[in-house]
Amino acid sequence: MPDISLRRIALLGCGAMGTRIARAIDSGGINAVLTHVYDQAPERSKGLVDSLKTKPIIVENTHLLSSNNTNLVVEAASQDAVKDVALSVIQNKKDLLIMSVGALLDEAIFEVLADACREYGRSIYLPSGAIAGIDALRAVRGELESVTLTTTKNPRSLSGVPYIEQSGVDLGSLDGPAEVFAGTAADAVRHFPANINVAALIDVACAGGGSTKVRIVADPSIDRNIHEVRASGGFGSMIIRVENVPDPDNPRTSLLAALSAIERIRGLCSGGIMAG
Amino acid sequence: MPDISLRRIALLGCGAMGTRIARAIDSGGINAVLTHVYDQAPERSKGLVDSLKTKPIIVENTHLLSSNNTNLVVEAASQDAVKDVALSVIQNKKDLLIMSVGALLDEAIFEVLADACREYGRSIYLPSGAIAGIDALRAVRGELESVTLTTTKNPRSLSGVPYIEQSGVDLGSLDGPAEVFAGTAADAVRHFPANINVAALIDVACAGGGSTKVRIVADPSIDRNIHEVRASGGFGSMIIRVENVPDPDNPRTSLLAALSAIERIRGLCSGGIMAG
Repeated sequence: MPDISLRRIALLGCGAMGTRIARAIDSGGINAVLTHVYDQAPERSKGLVDSLKTKPIIVENTHLLSSNNTNLVVEAASQDAVKDVALSVIQNKKDLLIMSVGALLDEAIFEVLADACREYGRSIYLPSGAIAGIDALRAVRGELESVTLTTTKNPRSLSGVPYIEQSGVDLGSLDGPAEVFAGTAADAVRHFPANINVAALIDVACAGGGSTKVRIVADPSIDRNIHEVRASGGFGSMIIRVENVPDPDNPRTSLLAALSAIERIRGLCSGGIMAG
Repeated sequence: MPDISLRRIALLGCGAMGTRIARAIDSGGINAVLTHVYDQAPERSKGLVDSLKTKPIIVENTHLLSSNNTNLVVEAASQDAVKDVALSVIQNKKDLLIMSVGALLDEAIFEVLADACREYGRSIYLPSGAIAGIDALRAVRGELESVTLTTTKNPRSLSGVPYIEQSGVDLGSLDGPAEVFAGTAADAVRHFPANINVAALIDVACAGGGSTKVRIVADPSIDRNIHEVRASGGFGSMIIRVENVPDPDNPRTSLLAALSAIERIRGLCSGGIMAG
């Protein structure tokens, strides 16, 4: 039950997604001010800050993000960044919004962060990302009998993944859809770390402990990333299918993922009538 | 960014849904205590209170729910109850969770409540209800080109609706699916007040001002309420299809709707790692 004073936000990661988030805050549509930013590439943080009307401070290391008078740290960087900084954010009594959700499928990390949230009275927010229906999946998690995610991508988005190279699939010669992975969410995150935050998010929402079933399909005929979730149980059943336009500034990310982060931040910073 | 002290909750409506919510709080799985309840049928509030371990106080009118030291009032009663009590809850500086979302498609009511939330610094929460994907619809609402909801129900659930009787459709003689309504969410809520909170919720999430397209289909071959949302725009497209098992204690309501309310309340009362 948030009050609605102006929020102070720090941003970790100034790539395509971080830039969209920063601009949304800078545009004034969110009851917040961006106070500090960090990127491991200094020219990226500088480029972002130069483009903003209200200039945040560029800090020299990630830990300085949460040492300030900040309410919320937003991570839009990488799983490694989450592993590096998440605990200290919570220990500094800031809330944290995580986009690189895959990091949480490491059970030790999840438990440490969940414990820290309890101890320091803070929250970690995982926006609904490049999928829909995390709201309902979370609601039915006590009633779930099965949940499966099928992610279909153009082979270009999967090139250079060691798991595929070792499996002998020649992505360049596909002339139709081909399953390149079937297994648990935990294995999917391990083998496709840059591709599979949606699997991790669904698994956390369903309290699956990494066990959610995941299929990854390469299909040279598509240009969008398609995620399809099928879930059933005592509540009934649901099918959620999202065809995502890639972010033109970073084709490995979906536009919807950035939009979901912006909307989650907007909701956290506002009172009023909130659907969902 | 909620702190995580024990929340005090008041409940308006002790029917099937209110009872599920009350029992979930009473079971200890939510960091909250149910302090006050009201139902226009006194025997229902008494029946509920008798079944709970921690006994809330039965108040004598709706306005007493928010005159106490309560954090959140939960409405699980009717659109009329929302119209009667919502404004005074906000003016008493309590947050409000609304299940009878249809009431908000009356534009005057929506604006008065949105203004009151701003003035008193409070929030009105609308759980994702009997549908999935309100999270993503809200995120893309600035990019939406079209959104359509098709709701399919057994004709039994639609019997006695004046609009259908006037339209000349004989629900009893259908031998397959038949469209009984096509129009805007605002019209759907007007003609099917007891059936169509999902349409209202989608419309509020998409900031549609009542203009979301809605179809209602009667199909004697099904026993579940099916909601299918199709949305497209700059982000890509999504299809969300939920087949809902009716609540055995009130077949006009879906089990998922009660589960979504419970999960929303749980999230509001807890810190920790929150997906979606």
